[in-house]
Formats: sequence, C-alpha cells, structure tokens
Amino acid sequence: MGVTIAIDCMGGDHGPSVTVPAALSFLRSHPDANAVLVGREEVLRPLIASEAARFGDRLRLQPASEVVTMEDPPAIAMRSKKDSSMRVAIDLVKDGRADAAVSAGNTGALMAISRFVLKTLPGIDRPAIATVLPSQKGHTYVLDLGANVDCSAEHLLQFGVMGAMLVAAIEHKERPSVGLLNIGEEVIKGNDVVKEAGELLRNSGLNFYGNVEGNDIFEGTVDVVVCDGFVGNVALKTSEGLAQMIGVFLKEEFKRSLLTRAMAVVVLPVLRRFKQRVDHRLYNGAPLLGLRGVVLKSHGSADALAFENALARAAEAASNRLLERISERMASMNEEKA
Amino acid sequence: MGVTIAIDCMGGDHGPSVTVPAALSFLRSHPDANAVLVGREEVLRPLIASEAARFGDRLRLQPASEVVTMEDPPAIAMRSKKDSSMRVAIDLVKDGRADAAVSAGNTGALMAISRFVLKTLPGIDRPAIATVLPSQKGHTYVLDLGANVDCSAEHLLQFGVMGAMLVAAIEHKERPSVGLLNIGEEVIKGNDVVKEAGELLRNSGLNFYGNVEGNDIFEGTVDVVVCDGFVGNVALKTSEGLAQMIGVFLKEEFKRSLLTRAMAVVVLPVLRRFKQRVDHRLYNGAPLLGLRGVVLKSHGSADALAFENALARAAEAASNRLLERISERMASMNEEKA
Repeated sequence: MGVTIAIDCMGGDHGPSVTVPAALSFLRSHPDANAVLVGREEVLRPLIASEAARFGDRLRLQPASEVVTMEDPPAIAMRSKKDSSMRVAIDLVKDGRADAAVSAGNTGALMAISRFVLKTLPGIDRPAIATVLPSQKGHTYVLDLGANVDCSAEHLLQFGVMGAMLVAAIEHKERPSVGLLNIGEEVIKGNDVVKEAGELLRNSGLNFYGNVEGNDIFEGTVDVVVCDGFVGNVALKTSEGLAQMIGVFLKEEFKRSLLTRAMAVVVLPVLRRFKQRVDHRLYNGAPLLGLRGVVLKSHGSADALAFENALARAAEAASNRLLERISERMASMNEEKA
Repeated sequence: MGVTIAIDCMGGDHGPSVTVPAALSFLRSHPDANAVLVGREEVLRPLIASEAARFGDRLRLQPASEVVTMEDPPAIAMRSKKDSSMRVAIDLVKDGRADAAVSAGNTGALMAISRFVLKTLPGIDRPAIATVLPSQKGHTYVLDLGANVDCSAEHLLQFGVMGAMLVAAIEHKERPSVGLLNIGEEVIKGNDVVKEAGELLRNSGLNFYGNVEGNDIFEGTVDVVVCDGFVGNVALKTSEGLAQMIGVFLKEEFKRSLLTRAMAVVVLPVLRRFKQRVDHRLYNGAPLLGLRGVVLKSHGSADALAFENALARAAEAASNRLLERISERMASMNEEKA
C-alpha cells in the first residue's frame, strides 16, 4: 500500500487542464501510489472518465465546491472558503486519508490554511518554504523562501534542522551539510541575527559548514542553504529573472539571421540537453516544512510536467519519514539544551 | 582639460599587471582624460617606461609605499597604512588633484577610508555601493550591495535618491524610474522597514515605480532597484553563481563528443556574441555613492578589460556632476519637508 497524494486540482494558473493530466501521468509512473483529486466534481469527473477503470481504487475524487483564487487574502481563504479544494486537500492529510497534499494555488492561503489545520511540529515556531535548485554538483535546497520575513536566530536554526531533515528524507543523505547565507568577508559581515544564528547552528549537532554566499547556492558548496524569507525570495526570483534573460538572449542570437537560424537547427540536440539541465520544471514542488503533515506548493504557472514533478517530490517526502525526522531532531536538540 | 582618474594600481588580485595596462588602454580610448597611477614607484615606473613619452602629462605617477591587502581589517587599513596606494588615491580626490579614484582592493577598507577621508554629502547618513547589471531592456542599477546591512527606511530613501542621480549622470536620463525590492504579493508583503521606505519614496518627488521583485532586476522593469546591503549582496552573488553555472553547463554540453565539439566551432560566432551581451566585465566598476568625491570599486578579480571599464565609468560619473546632482536633490527634498 503506497502513499496517497491529495491534489488541489483547481489551484494554479491553469487549474484542472494541468493538474489532472499530471495526476494521471504520476499514477502511471508511480505504480504504488494513489491520488485523490480534489475539486468541483462536475469539472473533474469528465476529465478522468476514460482513465477511471484503468486505475481503479488508486484514483479517487473528493468533491470541493469552492476555489481559492490568487487574489484571496489568506485570512479570507481560511475563514470563508471552508469547502475550497485547497482546504479539503489539507483536511485529507489532517484526517490521515492522504499522506501529502499538493497545490499550485495562492501561497499565502496555502500556508495559512496548512498551519491552521495541521498545526506546527513540536519545537517549530514557524513553518518555512523550501525549494531545490540545480547546482554544479547536484542540488541545493534553500529555505526560507518567503513565509517568514522577520526571522530570529532561533527561527534560522529551526530552518537548518528542517532543511537537513528534508534532504535526509528526499535525497537519502544522512548528514547533509548546512550553510548559513551571509555576505562577503570584505564588508561588515552580516547582521546581528545572522551572526547569532551562526553560533546556534555551530552548536546544533547538525553538519554545519559555516557561512556561505549567494554564489554558493549554484556552486553546490552545501546541501542546504538557510536564510530568512525575504532574502530567500529575492535570491530565487532574481535567479528566475536571470535565467529567463539568458534564455531570451540566446534565442535572439540564434534568430539573428538565416545563417544563425540554420546553425540553431544543427546544434538543437546540444541546446536541448543544456536546457534540460537547467529546466526549472524539474525543480517544481516546494515543501512547506515544520507542519504536522506534508504539504507541497507547486509554482502557479506550472505545466503538467512541472506539476507531476511536484507530485513525485511529495510522494518521496511522505514515504521517507520527513515529519518524524524533523520531530526527532528537534527533540534531541532540546534534550541536549535541558 | 578632461577628467583625471587616480588609480590604485596595487589593489586587486592581479595588481599592476592588470591595472597598468588597463590605465594605458583607457588613456588611448579617452584622449581627453588623464591618469595618476598610484603605487610603488619601483614597480610601476618600468611598466610605463615605453609609453611615458606618448602620453606626456596625461600620465603621471604618484608614489605610495604601502599596500592594503584583502585580509586587512578596514580599521587597520585606515589607521596604520597611511601611505597605502588606496589611501593616497583617495587623498588625491580629496585634494582636488583627481576627479575620481578607482580601486580593485578590499571593499571594506575602500569604504572605510573613503568615508573617513572624503566624508559624506549633506543629508546622506551612509554611503552605499551601487552596481549596474544587464537587463532585457538595457541596464538596471542596484544599490546597496553590501556596505549597509541594517538599514532604516530613511537609508533606503537616500539610496533611492543616490541611485536616481547616478543614472541621471551616467545614462543621461533625467527622471529615472526607481523600484523598491520587495517580495511577492502572495505571502506576507515585505517587512516593516521596507513598507515604511515605500511610503517615503512615494512622497519623495522621485519617479517611484513602487515595489519590484527579484526577477524585475533582469527584466529591466525600472532603472534603479533599491534594497538593503544584505539583500543586494545576496542577489548579486546569487546571479554571479547562476551565470557561472550556466556557462559551465553550456560548455560541458558542447564538449560532450567530437560531434558536439565540431558543432561548437560552427556556432562559435553566435556563442561569442551571446557571451558578450552577458559579459560581467562590461559591468565592472561599482560607485561608492554619498561621498564628497567619486570613488569606484572594481571587482578584485577584474582583468584589464574589466578594469578599463571601471575607469571609463569613473570618468563618466566625474564629468557629469554626480555629486552636485545628489546634493541638490537631497537639499530640495529637505526643503520640502521643512
């Protein structure tokens, strides 16, 4: 009996036209997994009609009459849309009827509802959002990405624990290295909160590497990079902007003349393989960490391939004791303190 | 009589082997400009011997017996190396014998010495470091880049003024647009300092666009992006790391086989033109803003082309009333307040 993923099928820019095909493809590639599609029955039912027999019990439908929009303030989404597909998907996790929930909807609402319904794990003050990025050596996990803007040193320490346990669960590395995002040695080093967090991490029993800088994210210096949500969000969005600009420039240069267009055709296989290595769709699916349940946020504009990757990541996190790892680590840290 | 640039020839990873050829090339391409090479006479004299006659009075040498190293703490560099090439170059600006100073040395020391020797402009609490980055629409100026880690809303407002005046001086745009770096609308929006800074900028008389996100830097949404030094430094270093990784991946794909190597030769002109557009050497030379004198910081690892670009940018800033523009703007803002 494999993991069961509750899927908010109505969320994201494209809704069921992306989430349902992604779910079906996920079931095909994960023969042990189950999916519960959450959303408006009259919309979802016809989309799965032809596949229902094939997957039998592995594919279920859970009706939800409302939809959280990108514009809904988190408080409104939480209080007045109790039958939203987002809320119902998280309720399924709460009730133990699903092992993880995935949504491409409104991040603020997803965080607020997850926190309200699932509560935080013992020892965790604030849940965080983590992402995985490609690096020269493999992958780097970065957190927080925007859930927490004014962080204390204790919060950063907790992010370190959550990030390390995430990598342990998903990448099967027992002692992932953790770096604290800071600025160069040349100028005044970091602010007081970051300095204090460095002390806490050094004494945490984690495999703490020390300070890292922005470039270390893509150099792959450490497995986990810890920062506050403002800084993490800026780093991620800046990277997205730069990658996009580089793509546009490369395309423009190959479209400059008939000759360069012909060249592009020749090198297409190389360019395609290059593109695959930095394809952000491979890195879709940002875990909300620190909750008593596994919830992943997909990019709102995800296509079916990207959304399926988020589902696969959710299955991986749910089947490898992510929550237990975080709880155990927090407990042993607090024992040492006491 | 053109501008005179004082050049710290001993600073940076490569010292005179980079700075002196860059200075000579700068004099060739800027027939109105003058250069004062600052550093150890016995080192510099032989390097310019063959060119001295050609440039005559435009090329001078100012002896300085000491060198600030990358490891020197700013306070030590300032107090106990009073005859360093860095210090003497800035003294030349202070004394009016040069219009700008350029150094590839230790950023912290350069900032500390500049601030001590030159002092800040009226109304400016803290000098900032700005950089220019390529964007889909041209260039984006970002500040602060690491001089200031705990900023108040007032500091961010001053960065806005300094950045706008820098673009006015260097890019000849009279009302450059200014954006405040913040995080997405989905999550809790920004922190209190950023919110307050938004209010101040809105009432500043600047051409304030509003909040921008990380991706807007490379999309070219605004001319100037304002942020605190911690965030700016992380954004810049993260971009450097990503650009480097993309370069490595692209190279690896073209080196994969004999066939792909042959393809690389075919598309070389296209790849070269692409590379030129994102070449970070074109963007070298980060102005230290808010001082009573023009000082630019070159990347420590700059090669001669990159260092020459920093010299050219310094000449541009010094010849277009940068300091006067900042002072005037600050004065008119303070008058309105009074």
